[in-house]
Amino acid sequence: MIRFGVIGYGYWGPNVVRNLHNLDGAQVVGVCDTNPTALARAKRSYPSIRATSDPSVLLSSTDIDAVAVITPVHTHFELAKAALQNGKHVFVEKPFTSSVAQAEELIELAARQNLKIMVDHTFLFTGAVRKIRQLIDEGALGNLYYYDSTRVNLGLFQHDVNVVWDLAPHDLSIMDYLIDARPEALVATGESHLNGLEDVAFITVYFPGNIIAHINVNWLSPVKVRTTLIGGERKMVVWNDLEADEKIKLYDKGVQVANRDGVYELLVSYRSGDMWAPKVEQTEALKLELDYFRRCISDDQTPSNDGKAGWRVVKMLQAADSSLKEKGKAVRL
Amino acid sequence: MIRFGVIGYGYWGPNVVRNLHNLDGAQVVGVCDTNPTALARAKRSYPSIRATSDPSVLLSSTDIDAVAVITPVHTHFELAKAALQNGKHVFVEKPFTSSVAQAEELIELAARQNLKIMVDHTFLFTGAVRKIRQLIDEGALGNLYYYDSTRVNLGLFQHDVNVVWDLAPHDLSIMDYLIDARPEALVATGESHLNGLEDVAFITVYFPGNIIAHINVNWLSPVKVRTTLIGGERKMVVWNDLEADEKIKLYDKGVQVANRDGVYELLVSYRSGDMWAPKVEQTEALKLELDYFRRCISDDQTPSNDGKAGWRVVKMLQAADSSLKEKGKAVRL
Amino acid sequence: MIRFGVIGYGYWGPNVVRNLHNLDGAQVVGVCDTNPTALARAKRSYPSIRATSDPSVLLSSTDIDAVAVITPVHTHFELAKAALQNGKHVFVEKPFTSSVAQAEELIELAARQNLKIMVDHTFLFTGAVRKIRQLIDEGALGNLYYYDSTRVNLGLFQHDVNVVWDLAPHDLSIMDYLIDARPEALVATGESHLNGLEDVAFITVYFPGNIIAHINVNWLSPVKVRTTLIGGERKMVVWNDLEADEKIKLYDKGVQVANRDGVYELLVSYRSGDMWAPKVEQTEALKLELDYFRRCISDDQTPSNDGKAGWRVVKMLQAADSSLKEKGKAVRL
Amino acid sequence: MIRFGVIGYGYWGPNVVRNLHNLDGAQVVGVCDTNPTALARAKRSYPSIRATSDPSVLLSSTDIDAVAVITPVHTHFELAKAALQNGKHVFVEKPFTSSVAQAEELIELAARQNLKIMVDHTFLFTGAVRKIRQLIDEGALGNLYYYDSTRVNLGLFQHDVNVVWDLAPHDLSIMDYLIDARPEALVATGESHLNGLEDVAFITVYFPGNIIAHINVNWLSPVKVRTTLIGGERKMVVWNDLEADEKIKLYDKGVQVANRDGVYELLVSYRSGDMWAPKVEQTEALKLELDYFRRCISDDQTPSNDGKAGWRVVKMLQAADSSLKEKGKAVRL
Repeated sequence: MIRFGVIGYGYWGPNVVRNLHNLDGAQVVGVCDTNPTALARAKRSYPSIRATSDPSVLLSSTDIDAVAVITPVHTHFELAKAALQNGKHVFVEKPFTSSVAQAEELIELAARQNLKIMVDHTFLFTGAVRKIRQLIDEGALGNLYYYDSTRVNLGLFQHDVNVVWDLAPHDLSIMDYLIDARPEALVATGESHLNGLEDVAFITVYFPGNIIAHINVNWLSPVKVRTTLIGGERKMVVWNDLEADEKIKLYDKGVQVANRDGVYELLVSYRSGDMWAPKVEQTEALKLELDYFRRCISDDQTPSNDGKAGWRVVKMLQAADSSLKEKGKAVRL
Repeated sequence: MIRFGVIGYGYWGPNVVRNLHNLDGAQVVGVCDTNPTALARAKRSYPSIRATSDPSVLLSSTDIDAVAVITPVHTHFELAKAALQNGKHVFVEKPFTSSVAQAEELIELAARQNLKIMVDHTFLFTGAVRKIRQLIDEGALGNLYYYDSTRVNLGLFQHDVNVVWDLAPHDLSIMDYLIDARPEALVATGESHLNGLEDVAFITVYFPGNIIAHINVNWLSPVKVRTTLIGGERKMVVWNDLEADEKIKLYDKGVQVANRDGVYELLVSYRSGDMWAPKVEQTEALKLELDYFRRCISDDQTPSNDGKAGWRVVKMLQAADSSLKEKGKAVRL
Repeated sequence: MIRFGVIGYGYWGPNVVRNLHNLDGAQVVGVCDTNPTALARAKRSYPSIRATSDPSVLLSSTDIDAVAVITPVHTHFELAKAALQNGKHVFVEKPFTSSVAQAEELIELAARQNLKIMVDHTFLFTGAVRKIRQLIDEGALGNLYYYDSTRVNLGLFQHDVNVVWDLAPHDLSIMDYLIDARPEALVATGESHLNGLEDVAFITVYFPGNIIAHINVNWLSPVKVRTTLIGGERKMVVWNDLEADEKIKLYDKGVQVANRDGVYELLVSYRSGDMWAPKVEQTEALKLELDYFRRCISDDQTPSNDGKAGWRVVKMLQAADSSLKEKGKAVRL
Repeated sequence: MIRFGVIGYGYWGPNVVRNLHNLDGAQVVGVCDTNPTALARAKRSYPSIRATSDPSVLLSSTDIDAVAVITPVHTHFELAKAALQNGKHVFVEKPFTSSVAQAEELIELAARQNLKIMVDHTFLFTGAVRKIRQLIDEGALGNLYYYDSTRVNLGLFQHDVNVVWDLAPHDLSIMDYLIDARPEALVATGESHLNGLEDVAFITVYFPGNIIAHINVNWLSPVKVRTTLIGGERKMVVWNDLEADEKIKLYDKGVQVANRDGVYELLVSYRSGDMWAPKVEQTEALKLELDYFRRCISDDQTPSNDGKAGWRVVKMLQAADSSLKEKGKAVRL
C-alpha cells in the first residue's frame, strides 16, 4: 500500500485524488491547498482525508510514502525537493520544473536517495498515444517524416507561464515518446497580445534523419483543435483527440519516388488506399499512469516518464523561450 | 474587346481559357502549349482558336492585346518580359516570378510602356476572402492578433519548386490583402524527404503591432486541410475553404484583460457569444478576376493585384527560402 | 426545504441524487435500490443519507415530502401511486407510465390530494430546447412545417420496453413542448431483430395545419446520431445535440411560392442567407428541472411538465405500439 | 459503334451527352430539346451534332440505334414507346415511367422487338454502391437488419411529381440492388406545404426475414444530407455520399443475444471494434453505366438495370402514392 499526499487541489488535483482514492494498493492520506475554497471542496468529497493549507504538514508526515505535486510550475522545484529530502517519492505535474538546472538537481537528489520521480505526462497513457506507438513499433508507418500538432483553444490564461509552457509539454512529451531519436535543434516563433506572455506560438523541432516536428499552440483561438498529423514513409496517421470515437485514423496513403536513369525528372507516384480507425482503449489515462507509478515504487522500477523524460521536455521548453526571444533563432538541443 | 493569348494549357490554363471565352468584352485568340496532348485538348474544346506550340507566335501576334502566362514559375519572367516588350498586357500565374529582381524588372518595363500587369492571386476574388476583408473593414474583428493558415494535402509534387513556392503564395497574397501593414520579418522552417525540395514547411511572418501570421504547408498530408484562423480583439474568424456552405464562421469570442491597481494578477475575462456564418458569394473567383483585368485594361486603371503585389509575395517567398536554408533564421523584409 | 426520497439508483438515479443534494431548498433524506451494489455506491458517496432496499421505507417515511421514482417503466405506476397515497409529491422518470389508464389514475389521485406530479422530460430544460422554443415564440421560424428527429445508437437494450418506449419519449415530449397544436394521428413502423422487441422504429405524427413530425429511433446503429431538423416558413433549425458548441443552427433559408395569374406553373423561389448559431445556456438541465419542481411544490404551482404532459406522451407511445402491430396503420389520437 | 440520339438537354441531359461523346464505341448523332436556350447550349458545345426541337426527328432517324430519354417523367412513356416502335434501344432517365402499366407495356414491346431497355439508376454504378454490394456478397455484414437512408436538401421543386418520385427512386433502386429479397409491403407518410405535392415524406418498406428499409426524403431541409445506414448481424455500414473521401465506413460493431437456459432475461452483448473505410472507385458512374449499356446492346445481353428493375421501382413509387393518400396505410407489393 503506497500512501500519498497530494499538494494542489485546483483544476487537476481533484482528478489525481479521485484516481488515487479508487486505486487498489494506494491510499490518499492528505490533501493540501492554500485556497480555502478548494480545501473545503476536498473535505466535503473525502471527509476522512487530512486536509491542510500547509504543504510542510504533508511533506514531513511519516505516514506518507509519496507526494503528488499538482501546483503551478514555479512551485514544483521547492515542493518536489522538500519531498525528496524527506524521503518521499514524487509525482510532479507537467512541466517538471521551471528550468533545466532545477530538473537536474531533482534527478540527482532522487538518484542519491533511490526515490522515484514520475512526471505527469498523462497523454502517454491514453489509448490513442499507445496505439500510435504500437503502429510505429510494428512498422506500419515506416520511417517517420513529420509530427505536426495543433493544440489551440480560447484560454485558459496562465499568469506565470506563456502558452508554450502551458500547452506544448503535451506534444513535447508525446514526441519524446513516439520518436526514437533525440532532437537536434528547436525554432520557436510567437507573439503576446494581452499580458506580455506569448499567447500564440509555433515550434519546430529538428530531428536526425529528416524527421521534423511542429507544434502550433494558441490561447486565442475561437475553436478548440487537438489534431496531430504523423507522416510516415508507408502510412500516415491523423489523430483527432476531440473525436469521441475514431480518434486515430491510419491512412494507406503515400508518395514514392523513383529515379529514372539518365532522366532529369523524378517519378513521383501517389498511393491512396483504405483508411482504418483502430479501436482505442478508453481507460482513463491518469488512472493507468498512477497505477504504473504505484507499481514502479513497489517493484523498485524506473518509470519511462521519469525525471529524465521531464528534463528532456523542460530542455525544449527552455530552448523555445530562448528562440522566441530572438525571433526564431535556432537553439541547439 | 480585349483579345487574349493564353500560354500554358496544363492544369490551370483550361480554366483561364474557359473563363475568358465566356467573358463579355474578352476574346481568346490563341492558345499555346508545348505538350501536344494538351494542345489537342484545347483544339477539341475550342476549334476556332489558334493553337500553337510556339509561344512567340502569340507573343508577336498583332491581334493580341494581352497575354496570360499560365506556365511553370521558372518560365514566367521570359514570357512576361517578351509580352511586355511586344506591347502586350500580362496576366501571370502565381507566384509572379522566381526572384525579386525579375519582378522588379517586369514592373519597371510595364510602367515604361504603360502596360498592365496582373498577378493571378485568385483567392482575393473569392467570396470568402472578400467577406473577411469586409468584416475587417467594418471593424467587426477589431485590431488583428494573428492569421494562422493550414494548407496541406497529398501532392501534387512540383519538380521545379518546393512546397512553399507551390502552396504559400495563396496565403501570402491573402495576408497581403487582409492585413493593413507591411511585414517586418519572416522565419521559415521545413524539411525535404523525397526529392531534395522541401515538402513540409512552416512560415511565421511578423507584422508591426504584434500581428503575427503563420502558414503551414505540406505535400505529405494524408488529409486535405484548408483552414485559416484569424484572431482579432473583438471577434474571430474560422475560414474552412473545404466547407460547401458556411465557409466563414465569425465567433463572438474573445479575451479581455484589465489591470487591477496595485495587484499582481491581471484580470482576464473570456467572452463567448453567438457564432454567425454569413452568406458568401459563390461566383467563380477566376471569372471575377479576369473581368477585373479586362476592365483595368479598358479603363487604364492599376489592378490591386498588380506587379507590386506579386513582388511583395515573391519577396516573402525568397525570404522563406533563405530562412529555410538557415534553419529558421529570421529574414528582415 | 423540500425533503426527497429517491427510489432507483441505477443509471439515472445518481444524477437525480447529486443534483438534489446540491440544490438549495432541497434535501435528499433517503435512497432506495434493490441492487446491493447500487446501494453500496450510494452509501459511499452520501454517507449521511438513509439507504434502503425497501421502497416502502421511503414511501411511508414522515420526514419525506416528495419521492423521485427513477426505476424501470413497469414499476412507475405502483410506486408513484403509493407515494401519492402517502401524501407525497412525485417526480417520475420518463415515460410516465406503462399505459394511458395508469397515467389518468395518477393524475386524478394527485389532483384529489393537491399533490404535484412532475414527469422527468429533462430535455425541456436544456439550453437547446429552450432556445428553439424562444425562436418559435419570437416568430423567427414562422409557421412550422415539420419536426424531424434522428435518435440512434448502438444499444442500450432494454428488457421490458422496445426502442420506441426507450428513446422516443424524448422527442415526443419535445414536440409536445414546441408545437402549439395537439397531434391528430400517429403512424409507426419498425422491426425487431433480436429479442422480440422492436429495435428499429419510425414514427410519423400528423398535426393540424400540415405540420408533420417524424422520429427515427434505432438501437442497432453503428454511430450515435442526435439530430433534429425543424422546418419553418421563414427559417429552419438544425439541432445537433452531439456538438459541444453550436448545438443549434438557424438557417435563413426557405422556399416561397407565388401564383402567377392564369399560368399553370407555380413560381417557387429559394432563399439562402446567413446561418446563425446562438449561444446556448450550458446549465445542467436536470438541475434546472429539479429546482423548478422544488419551486412548484413550495409555491403550489402546476409544472408545465406535469402528469398531463406525461399522459400526452404515453398516449402517443401506446398509439405507436398499436400502429407497429398493424404495420403502420394510422391511430387517431 | 452505337449511334445515339439524346432527347432532353436540361439538367441531366448534358451529362449524358458528354459521357456518350467521350465513350469509345458510342457516338451522339443528335440532340433534342424544346427549350431554344438549352438547344443553343448543346450546339455551342457540340457543333457537329444534329440539334432539333422535334423529338420525332431523332425517333425516326435511320442513323440512330439507341435513344436516351432524359425528360420529365410524364413524357417517358410516349417517347420510349415511339423509340421502341422505331426499332431503337432506349435508355430512360429514372423513374422509368409514371405508372406500373406503362412500364409493363414498354417491357413487353421491347421484348417483342428484341430491344434493350436500360433505366438510368445511376447510383448502382457508383464506387460506393458497388463496394457495399461487394461487402454484402462477401458476407461482411452478415444477415441484413435494416437499410435507412436520409436524402434531404432545399429544393429543387418539381412541378409534376412529389418529393417521393423525385428523390426516392435513388434509394428504391439501390435497395433493389443490395437486398436479395423482394419487398412485401410499403408504408408512406408525408405532407405538402407549398404547392399541393408532398415535399416531405417517409417511406418504410418491409422485406421478408425481418429486413426493414426506411427512406426520408425532404425538399425543405436547410442542409443537404445523403446518409445511409445499413445494419447487419456482423458489421454495419455508414455511407455518407457527401464525403469527398471515406464515403463508406464499415463498423465492426454489433449486438449478440444469447438465451440463458431457464432464465428470463436475454443476454445481450455489444461488440465494438475497428472502423474501416475502404477505398472507393472514383470513376464517374454515368460513364460506367453508359458503357455498360453500349456493351449490352453490342453483345445482346440484358442489363441488370433493365425495364424490369425500372418497373420494380415504379411499383414502389405507385404504392407510396397510395399509402400517402391514406395516411400510411400499408400497401402490399
